Amino acid sequence: MKQLALSKVYQLLEPGPVVLLTTARKGRDNVMTMSWHMMVEFTPPLVACIVSSADHSYAALRATKECVIAIPAVKLAQKVVAIGNASGRDVDKFKTVGLTKVPARAVAAPLIAECFANLECRVVDTRLTNKYSLFILEVVKAWIDPRQKNPRTIHHQGYGRFAVDGRTITIRSKMP
Amino acid sequence: MKQLALSKVYQLLEPGPVVLLTTARKGRDNVMTMSWHMMVEFTPPLVACIVSSADHSYAALRATKECVIAIPAVKLAQKVVAIGNASGRDVDKFKTVGLTKVPARAVAAPLIAECFANLECRVVDTRLTNKYSLFILEVVKAWIDPRQKNPRTIHHQGYGRFAVDGRTITIRSKMP
Repeated sequence: MKQLALSKVYQLLEPGPVVLLTTARKGRDNVMTMSWHMMVEFTPPLVACIVSSADHSYAALRATKECVIAIPAVKLAQKVVAIGNASGRDVDKFKTVGLTKVPARAVAAPLIAECFANLECRVVDTRLTNKYSLFILEVVKAWIDPRQKNPRTIHHQGYGRFAVDGRTITIRSKMP
Repeated sequence: MKQLALSKVYQLLEPGPVVLLTTARKGRDNVMTMSWHMMVEFTPPLVACIVSSADHSYAALRATKECVIAIPAVKLAQKVVAIGNASGRDVDKFKTVGLTKVPARAVAAPLIAECFANLECRVVDTRLTNKYSLFILEVVKAWIDPRQKNPRTIHHQGYGRFAVDGRTITIRSKMP
């Protein structure tokens, strides 16, 4: 994996792909599927996300204030759903689903080798966590897999139905 | 336009499409392009979004605490970019870009006739607005255009480059 400039992180999350979120606590790693996230600031990149208190990852995220957002291409869709359907309370999802952990640089949560991008994050604001399970994260390090060219991401429409990225259009714009 | 059950709203926003946001203040309507939004709660549907204080819509949203999120299909992509490149300070974008306003039911901000979905929203939490320009909205009424079948949405990757929804895949899932 190759480092990605933090100023480019928004280009990965702004399109709204389904992502995976990893945490590590007391020597136990976990991974969940997440679709409720958005960019908050370009640089340093801030991201908001919802991790429900019903999710096993919630306690780890609150306690350690660290996580990794890993972005899967469509070829991982079956694994993404399998992760969404299981709980880290019961099983080690990295093993049951078959994903490869790679140590991160700045956080204890692991990167996922099969994902085309991995974002190491720290929780920087929890003011809305009690009420909405909303966390503000800062991306402190970003990685990209240069071997995965033009990865197509998936976008959840509910009940296991996903839109896959199709054609790309470019329209002259003044916006970043 | 036909009413949509509020419990289905997340299925429209969770995939992360580019949306339009309308406001109305002192008899002046405005519309902006927005990509930084996410679901926060299923029912009643809560949405978080970033409306920068540099945007002309910011003051209207803060003052009136009302807006409409309108979701365009790919056929409106040129207009979406034109809206993103102009400011309501200077022009009436509904006129210059050519979009049709329709009165909303619960808020003063207008619906957009050409969009396949319109969500009437009220601001319900501004605790993170000063620091991050982050607003928590509640969707109080939702409309869908039944004539637009299987609309393909657009997802911004930066600098006017968009991924258009391609094929749809469905994987058996326990998740909503």
